[in-house]
Amino acid sequence: MPLIGIILGSDSDLPKVKECFETLDSFEVAYEVIVSSAHRSPEKTLEWVKSASERGIKVIIAIAGGAAHLPGVVASHTTLPVIGIPIETNIAGGLDSILSILQMPSGVPVATMAAGRSGGVNAALFALSILSTSDETIAEKLRAYRKKVAEKIEEKNKIIAETGLAAYIKKLEGKND
Amino acid sequence: MPLIGIILGSDSDLPKVKECFETLDSFEVAYEVIVSSAHRSPEKTLEWVKSASERGIKVIIAIAGGAAHLPGVVASHTTLPVIGIPIETNIAGGLDSILSILQMPSGVPVATMAAGRSGGVNAALFALSILSTSDETIAEKLRAYRKKVAEKIEEKNKIIAETGLAAYIKKLEGKND
Amino acid sequence: MPLIGIILGSDSDLPKVKECFETLDSFEVAYEVIVSSAHRSPEKTLEWVKSASERGIKVIIAIAGGAAHLPGVVASHTTLPVIGIPIETNIAGGLDSILSILQMPSGVPVATMAAGRSGGVNAALFALSILSTSDETIAEKLRAYRKKVAEKIEEKNKIIAETGLAAYIKKLEGKND
Amino acid sequence: MPLIGIILGSDSDLPKVKECFETLDSFEVAYEVIVSSAHRSPEKTLEWVKSASERGIKVIIAIAGGAAHLPGVVASHTTLPVIGIPIETNIAGGLDSILSILQMPSGVPVATMAAGRSGGVNAALFALSILSTSDETIAEKLRAYRKKVAEKIEEKNKIIAETGLAAYIKKLEGKND
Amino acid sequence: MPLIGIILGSDSDLPKVKECFETLDSFEVAYEVIVSSAHRSPEKTLEWVKSASERGIKVIIAIAGGAAHLPGVVASHTTLPVIGIPIETNIAGGLDSILSILQMPSGVPVATMAAGRSGGVNAALFALSILSTSDETIAEKLRAYRKKVAEKIEEKNKIIAETGLAAYIKKLEGKND
Amino acid sequence: MPLIGIILGSDSDLPKVKECFETLDSFEVAYEVIVSSAHRSPEKTLEWVKSASERGIKVIIAIAGGAAHLPGVVASHTTLPVIGIPIETNIAGGLDSILSILQMPSGVPVATMAAGRSGGVNAALFALSILSTSDETIAEKLRAYRKKVAEKIEEKNKIIAETGLAAYIKKLEGKND
Amino acid sequence: MPLIGIILGSDSDLPKVKECFETLDSFEVAYEVIVSSAHRSPEKTLEWVKSASERGIKVIIAIAGGAAHLPGVVASHTTLPVIGIPIETNIAGGLDSILSILQMPSGVPVATMAAGRSGGVNAALFALSILSTSDETIAEKLRAYRKKVAEKIEEKNKIIAETGLAAYIKKLEGKND
Amino acid sequence: MPLIGIILGSDSDLPKVKECFETLDSFEVAYEVIVSSAHRSPEKTLEWVKSASERGIKVIIAIAGGAAHLPGVVASHTTLPVIGIPIETNIAGGLDSILSILQMPSGVPVATMAAGRSGGVNAALFALSILSTSDETIAEKLRAYRKKVAEKIEEKNKIIAETGLAAYIKKLEGKND
Repeated sequence: MPLIGIILGSDSDLPKVKECFETLDSFEVAYEVIVSSAHRSPEKTLEWVKSASERGIKVIIAIAGGAAHLPGVVASHTTLPVIGIPIETNIAGGLDSILSILQMPSGVPVATMAAGRSGGVNAALFALSILSTSDETIAEKLRAYRKKVAEKIEEKNKIIAETGLAAYIKKLEGKND
Repeated sequence: MPLIGIILGSDSDLPKVKECFETLDSFEVAYEVIVSSAHRSPEKTLEWVKSASERGIKVIIAIAGGAAHLPGVVASHTTLPVIGIPIETNIAGGLDSILSILQMPSGVPVATMAAGRSGGVNAALFALSILSTSDETIAEKLRAYRKKVAEKIEEKNKIIAETGLAAYIKKLEGKND
Repeated sequence: MPLIGIILGSDSDLPKVKECFETLDSFEVAYEVIVSSAHRSPEKTLEWVKSASERGIKVIIAIAGGAAHLPGVVASHTTLPVIGIPIETNIAGGLDSILSILQMPSGVPVATMAAGRSGGVNAALFALSILSTSDETIAEKLRAYRKKVAEKIEEKNKIIAETGLAAYIKKLEGKND
Repeated sequence: MPLIGIILGSDSDLPKVKECFETLDSFEVAYEVIVSSAHRSPEKTLEWVKSASERGIKVIIAIAGGAAHLPGVVASHTTLPVIGIPIETNIAGGLDSILSILQMPSGVPVATMAAGRSGGVNAALFALSILSTSDETIAEKLRAYRKKVAEKIEEKNKIIAETGLAAYIKKLEGKND
Repeated sequence: MPLIGIILGSDSDLPKVKECFETLDSFEVAYEVIVSSAHRSPEKTLEWVKSASERGIKVIIAIAGGAAHLPGVVASHTTLPVIGIPIETNIAGGLDSILSILQMPSGVPVATMAAGRSGGVNAALFALSILSTSDETIAEKLRAYRKKVAEKIEEKNKIIAETGLAAYIKKLEGKND
Repeated sequence: MPLIGIILGSDSDLPKVKECFETLDSFEVAYEVIVSSAHRSPEKTLEWVKSASERGIKVIIAIAGGAAHLPGVVASHTTLPVIGIPIETNIAGGLDSILSILQMPSGVPVATMAAGRSGGVNAALFALSILSTSDETIAEKLRAYRKKVAEKIEEKNKIIAETGLAAYIKKLEGKND
Repeated sequence: MPLIGIILGSDSDLPKVKECFETLDSFEVAYEVIVSSAHRSPEKTLEWVKSASERGIKVIIAIAGGAAHLPGVVASHTTLPVIGIPIETNIAGGLDSILSILQMPSGVPVATMAAGRSGGVNAALFALSILSTSDETIAEKLRAYRKKVAEKIEEKNKIIAETGLAAYIKKLEGKND
Repeated sequence: MPLIGIILGSDSDLPKVKECFETLDSFEVAYEVIVSSAHRSPEKTLEWVKSASERGIKVIIAIAGGAAHLPGVVASHTTLPVIGIPIETNIAGGLDSILSILQMPSGVPVATMAAGRSGGVNAALFALSILSTSDETIAEKLRAYRKKVAEKIEEKNKIIAETGLAAYIKKLEGKND
């Protein structure tokens, strides 16, 4: 039974937050995904949110860009914690999405993540950290994940030391060609 | 029977758009006003919007600041024309409100007005211009209003000519003290 | 006889708002299109606007980028409802165009739509919603359009369910290559 | 024993988030408050964060303005959920604070709230919603709180109806004098 | 006979650019001032611009805030040099005014000055520098003005040296109380 | 003998303003071009500016991006009219360049043009309009240029009418492939 | 003999950076202060900068707002380390000053500090940290200063504990009345 | 023994600041490079900073993007001069990175460089200028470097004169294809 419910305003945003799904998969925590817009399919969105708690959902992740009302609309119909991921746009890289999700009025919070790729990963990790407040297994996995992240950086330094700085940079530049 | 429905997310915004009411009053066009938030009283908001058309409402004006989802949420539940007024905030004078109202996704339009005092007046005038497309009396009044606006500017020039520029400026500065 | 008049400052903007024309076509509502700049062909612009009402035009859509004075200039010579579409630019994705169209002074409203592709569609839909206030056929078509939009999203969810999330994302990513 | 740990970079920010404390008080949930800067007292900050989990803390709220590194620095030393409140500044109302807290790199999430007064209330409510995922009493209180918020808006409408719109606006304007 | 024509969209902007008038007065160069809006009195604006050259006007200064179309609209009806002064607004201190005046399309230039007090002075000086290209008396006065500006700064340094830095700062702070 | 002096901070900006040169060429007005940075070759810059007037230069065009001090530095050493062209950057399309050129202090004006391609053309046209205040031949050419610009737009409308809107758009889209 | 040279474009900025002087005073490091504008007194500015090194100056602090060319202009005439302090303006709290100082081209660095009060203090501290690379006494004082800053925060926590949180907040709010 | 310590939050930023390394190489000044994140490997970061002074490091360069806390975190654990380079992002070209590094609170300075390529070069040059305050060899090299930079611009002018402006521009355009 999924503990995390994920809702996106548009299926075209799925690839932009795929690291969110991959992170949850790597933690082996079940989640459900639905495409439903705050504006274009408001009835379905409401139906989904209002029944989320009953379906056993503990945390909601809502993803939207531009006017990006979805996280706020979802939050207005539930007291479950709602995490918002702003999708990047042409307006200064998504400043419209960020502020639309962030600037919620007093009384109805949404936890906003970064715009861009890191937002997807971090929404997953933050949802897991919420679950970890009452699930020591997840808490343990989160600590292990953090340790691994630090170790990966350590490995990079070793490779740089072995390769030499200039050669390492050239190799990276080659990748982006 | 009111033809224009006006909804605000917070009663504290009423003074900020009072020129909207005053403009409609001066045109003698009936309107209804409700305070209901997209996030804090979503059920009431939906109930109001969904029955608007049946109540005879032809145009909706929705007013909000910050995340400012109200105009978009209203528009998602009706095909009546929805006009949005962004309330000024500390974020660059309301850039958050402006973009949240403006950047609606394809399929659900909201007509955004300027932030600040002129937004209130212009929302009223735009609602009236919509009604004027099928009401020649309002159309005539709008043309008369526009003429009067131009005449007022003409009078200013006369007073400046009489007063002298420097004296006129001093008088204006005195007012703001 | 066209009910909607569309004016663009530059023919190079035509492809950027083609969804506007396509949307109006799909509603079978007649419109006229003219290229005329507020600054480079001001006389022609004025001539076109001032005669719009007599030609039977009920709503005007004006499209411009950068200084983007066209919608405001058009609105200054008519009391017909004027809808503005800001063209995206390099200044934060069109913030210059947005604010130039939006921040109209008290007395002369312009209804601003989103920058980018959705602006074109929504300008068409908003023009139709204005006409729908006195044309029940268009009103009915707008409700049907909205329903279809919601159904399309529903279909997406079915395909995702059948395809599997990861496979669906891969398919989408392939499209963008 | 406090479940929520609150850290501020400067004691001068205490009045700016006092609604955070008041909200938690009204829910009768214990919290601890410490003033410690990410930059000016980094050792104390680290000591406090690293022992937070052992002290029984389940959720952390970190408050900062300007460079606003505190929430991120705190999050880098714990896997507890960290909520960040950006303090308003002169840079576009706190855009610097917002982005510094929001734009965390992949791997270390911070849940960002709105800048300004509503950020304080919402950080408290979001912390409570996290606790509510494993505490039905808090969950129940959150639902009751939400209901009361909607009822207050309803009361406003009643008073407006009784007072009359113009009189109500005058009353509000008087308050701000 | 005035060589410089000055047009403002609103008489309320007169005090904000009074240093423009004072600077021109100090150079003893004649100018005319008219209040006429691009949007609210478009006919008068056009009439004034189109006859400017015949009236002997050599340079135009146009002042506007918000949508700030006035300088561009004026420039579209003349090939005289047009200088624009953006009036400060709440949108990031007048970024809307600045960009609306600045981002003119290819073919119709407007020379934009700074927003705020210095814009008024500099518009006057720039108009004078244009006249100075064919009027050696004005050219000479401009060089003298520049010299005096530098000398004033020199005097400040002398006073600071005499007063002492700390005392001088206190005196300045006293002035602003 | 060149009447217009053009200075660029970097030769890499030459292609970005080539329409400036082409416009001046088409008016058959002589100009000189120098590459010299405000920061990297300050001595040469000063030498060039200080002797500009003696060399017969009447108007200066200064082009720079980023910190973009060149126009202001040039203006600080001459009372000739200085026109600034901001080069586009990654900071919101050149907002840094725009503001650095625009926000000159009281006493030393720079006439700022739009960022991007139109800035180059318009700087040339504005320089010509300055010269035209004492050169009727240039004044006449400017009026002719403006007329031709309007005629070109007229021709576009004719081609659209002949081609059909949809076909015309397709043709334009083909060009950008 | 002063080791630090401080230059301001306007004497009106002196009070805005007085903490810079106070910080240097408290470290008992000599400095000289001059008011000289990049634009209004360019000759004096150049004279001062070019002789700075000979006068024994080791580090320069340059303070400016708006176009804020002063730090960059100073840096273009010396290879001494130049620290820039952006003065706050109405453009988003000084974003124009910040970017004008920051976005220096490759080859001529300026070390930019924060806008606002903290910029003054930090420019002083940074200048001292530069001197400390070859002066162990200053290095020692800097470490002591940092320790004292941390201790002050510790004292605040003690007072809060004694006063009680609510009472402490009330006391702070009283101060701001 | 390296005098300059360089720390990057991510190895993917190495190519973006390679000109920093190349500039230091050309001055034959030794430096060390480490990849360590403020958030993902905080322990390693602290360890590295705290021992920097003992290892003989005189100046630190810290490079980060987005939340970009690294320079500030580093500065909070040392009184050595810390230079920050903001990495460009999608948020208006790195405005988030810039402000996060720049807006440090009073007491803990970071010297911020430009975002983009020039930031890397200038961080190196600024670090060298710090060292030059007590090392005349480096001071001499800096003056020579500056001279060479000016000479390179001079050579450009010669080539343009020989090639002809139009041909030179064409050549440059060819390079960017």
